[in-house]
Amino acid sequence: MERVVLLDKAGRKWLAPIDGETVSVRGLGVLKAETLRASLGGVLTIGGQSFFVLRASAKDFADTLERRAQIITPKDAALLLFYADVKPGDTVVEGGSGSGALTIALARAVGEKGRVISYDLREDFLTVAQENVRRAGFADRVEFRLGDVREEMDGPADAVVLDILDPWKAVPAAHHALKPSGHFASYSPNMEQVKETVLALRKARFIEVRTVELIEREMEVREQGVRPAFAALGHTGYLTFARKVLLTA
Amino acid sequence: MERVVLLDKAGRKWLAPIDGETVSVRGLGVLKAETLRASLGGVLTIGGQSFFVLRASAKDFADTLERRAQIITPKDAALLLFYADVKPGDTVVEGGSGSGALTIALARAVGEKGRVISYDLREDFLTVAQENVRRAGFADRVEFRLGDVREEMDGPADAVVLDILDPWKAVPAAHHALKPSGHFASYSPNMEQVKETVLALRKARFIEVRTVELIEREMEVREQGVRPAFAALGHTGYLTFARKVLLTA
Amino acid sequence: MERVVLLDKAGRKWLAPIDGETVSVRGLGVLKAETLRASLGGVLTIGGQSFFVLRASAKDFADTLERRAQIITPKDAALLLFYADVKPGDTVVEGGSGSGALTIALARAVGEKGRVISYDLREDFLTVAQENVRRAGFADRVEFRLGDVREEMDGPADAVVLDILDPWKAVPAAHHALKPSGHFASYSPNMEQVKETVLALRKARFIEVRTVELIEREMEVREQGVRPAFAALGHTGYLTFARKVLLTA
Amino acid sequence: MERVVLLDKAGRKWLAPIDGETVSVRGLGVLKAETLRASLGGVLTIGGQSFFVLRASAKDFADTLERRAQIITPKDAALLLFYADVKPGDTVVEGGSGSGALTIALARAVGEKGRVISYDLREDFLTVAQENVRRAGFADRVEFRLGDVREEMDGPADAVVLDILDPWKAVPAAHHALKPSGHFASYSPNMEQVKETVLALRKARFIEVRTVELIEREMEVREQGVRPAFAALGHTGYLTFARKVLLTA
Repeated sequence: MERVVLLDKAGRKWLAPIDGETVSVRGLGVLKAETLRASLGGVLTIGGQSFFVLRASAKDFADTLERRAQIITPKDAALLLFYADVKPGDTVVEGGSGSGALTIALARAVGEKGRVISYDLREDFLTVAQENVRRAGFADRVEFRLGDVREEMDGPADAVVLDILDPWKAVPAAHHALKPSGHFASYSPNMEQVKETVLALRKARFIEVRTVELIEREMEVREQGVRPAFAALGHTGYLTFARKVLLTA
Repeated sequence: MERVVLLDKAGRKWLAPIDGETVSVRGLGVLKAETLRASLGGVLTIGGQSFFVLRASAKDFADTLERRAQIITPKDAALLLFYADVKPGDTVVEGGSGSGALTIALARAVGEKGRVISYDLREDFLTVAQENVRRAGFADRVEFRLGDVREEMDGPADAVVLDILDPWKAVPAAHHALKPSGHFASYSPNMEQVKETVLALRKARFIEVRTVELIEREMEVREQGVRPAFAALGHTGYLTFARKVLLTA
Repeated sequence: MERVVLLDKAGRKWLAPIDGETVSVRGLGVLKAETLRASLGGVLTIGGQSFFVLRASAKDFADTLERRAQIITPKDAALLLFYADVKPGDTVVEGGSGSGALTIALARAVGEKGRVISYDLREDFLTVAQENVRRAGFADRVEFRLGDVREEMDGPADAVVLDILDPWKAVPAAHHALKPSGHFASYSPNMEQVKETVLALRKARFIEVRTVELIEREMEVREQGVRPAFAALGHTGYLTFARKVLLTA
Repeated sequence: MERVVLLDKAGRKWLAPIDGETVSVRGLGVLKAETLRASLGGVLTIGGQSFFVLRASAKDFADTLERRAQIITPKDAALLLFYADVKPGDTVVEGGSGSGALTIALARAVGEKGRVISYDLREDFLTVAQENVRRAGFADRVEFRLGDVREEMDGPADAVVLDILDPWKAVPAAHHALKPSGHFASYSPNMEQVKETVLALRKARFIEVRTVELIEREMEVREQGVRPAFAALGHTGYLTFARKVLLTA
């Protein structure tokens, strides 16, 4: 399940498994896994070009993803994991799978004993997500399902994480699937989506309902001056969180 | 090691262990752990007052901390964990311990098989941090040490996480302690600290050196209108990340 | 029409006219205007206390306002004046008057030959605004009217500036009042107001329709470190701009 | 001195004077000023293409500028004018001229009776700025000078506005040139520049010393959803303001 990334001078990255004997890396040919293992954390020369061989990080997985749909940014993934309290051993329901970027982040966080159940309405998305998860080495912790989370989700789940167009329609199914004290999280670009979802969560008696937006500013540091970058990442999405409780004493 | 929080109507929280027989909660008296376990995710009435009994989340631990020094905010802790790629099984070195807020977040993320070594120069901080970590139930994964991370850190570490006044002075020791491909992370409020640290990281040939600031905007959602909150969190700190590599092929 | 502010060590300000013979300043007693004029830009001691005597600036007027309603912040006023292109000689229609903060900023910008027509539905607001404008010395350029800008505005105007609950309902009247090539500007806290207003402007065939939000970050500069302030101003409002054109060649 | 902009469907703009008899517009040929005047605020067809004919606004001047150096953004120009309290009749010293973008904004704000004295070290910048100011129709209110504002500025000035690499070196000359109660304003991209400038201002006993950064977020409004734009403007610069006072009673 071990993965490395090869990083070139231009900042490009290639993901590669190193637990077999040989590794086929698109554009770089077939390499010996042994060679990659021996170079871990150092420099490897392939065809006259230098590459850093790095243990694949959460961000590396996102950076090397085969993308179909728009993927969630690392800053938003980081906050989702933290505020939805995803931790080793958890069962997490995800809807929809998208390109599998968040699925991989969730799979890493739940660890070997955890489980991610990922739903999508579209088979083509599921195929891409499944392939990305397999390449990342987490196929054994993730179960993909063709299905509509607005209708039904499997449970009992420690957390439900949604990235769908109409998350408010999935609030009752999320409530049903969550364990008491479980965490709801949803990612939406538009304010109208946020409003509908928050109102639905309050109606379903979720507590600690909260919506935030994260703005990440990159800093440029040079000997002659420090300042925020002239180029900026704009809006990505709003993150809504809530917690299920049972209301009868 | 199981912990719950009791949450009252006013949003106040009390942390309580539920793996023993009885629990003493400051201001609420002595409760039966059995009763808390039975109420998990639901409502419990204590002395005529209603409380939600929730499985303690990463944010709950931060919210119920005994504070001595300023603590890192959840948004910054979330990004630190993600970009420093802290994951189950890791060994992480922290300097300094502060009030133990970040220590707890790290301890959760490294899981049962992971380890956190936390240094501080001040014994009074270590005492507070140690007590907070014990109350959170992570004493067995965290080792506290009185010491100066600018001089020396134990290793080999998957990640080094610093929240000290002069992190640039700890860059050589961090390089020494880190495994190849390991992650450096540092939190500082001022731009001068960022500058010195980034220049020291570049000099030590770290790669993927990057500094970001996170601005979290809370949204207010009401039937009659949605908008960002009038009250805002200002600057907390800059987060600097880097990765150690070996430069000989 | 000349005004000064008296500024004490604690940052408090008092507005005072200096074109008469004597000046009565609330809490400071009666002063000779001559003395104030002679101290302009310097220090004056009144009753044992030191005050800077400063020529009143746009921001000083806002800082010394008798407030009834929430007033527009200087950053938003600055952008409104610039993007609505308010300049010497202009006729500007304002709705509603509020506490007169924006009225004063508009009156300054249109100069001696310009004119501001300010409407409000509430007589109590008009009274406060009128008194604030008089104290600021701009009574001769501002005409206050009790009226509903959603029904009718006088014209022809170079700019229409709205700070009302339902600006979209005033779009037809604004179109009617504006000169061809004239500027529409509106200030609203909620995104629903922005949406209705933008859709109404597009329907009325306004061009260059644009909405922005300004976030002002204060920097703290000390010898030992520079950083954005820990305390921050949150959301104030969205600013929507547009331009009227005639569509027949 | 009247100017219009021609605006095409793609959002491109051409600046044109309309106080003569004919107008030569680059790429559009020679037009009758009379025709432009008659079309003001409406649509004009030139060579089969439609153009809106609009009275040139402050933003139009910035949008149609011949650029040599990086120019100040409208949001920053707006705040500079407001916080430096530039108003009809003022004398303002600018250093350096750059491409003349801020010079034009200043010239508009000081009105017919005001005056702008603009310094630059480089003759090529002065030439471009002078041409831009002439095209904008403000040649009679602006005086360009080849010179070093760190050495000397003419006065007495109501405001001094700096956009140079080392504004802290110009603080003594600015203090000398300013009237008591006059306004200092400076624009710098880097934190180090801000720090030096603020420390120099405090040393020179300026009061109300304050540095801000403005972040402008554009909103995207569509029937199906409202949100901040995915594309964002990053950092432009920090704005530092201060006020000169005389310290002897």
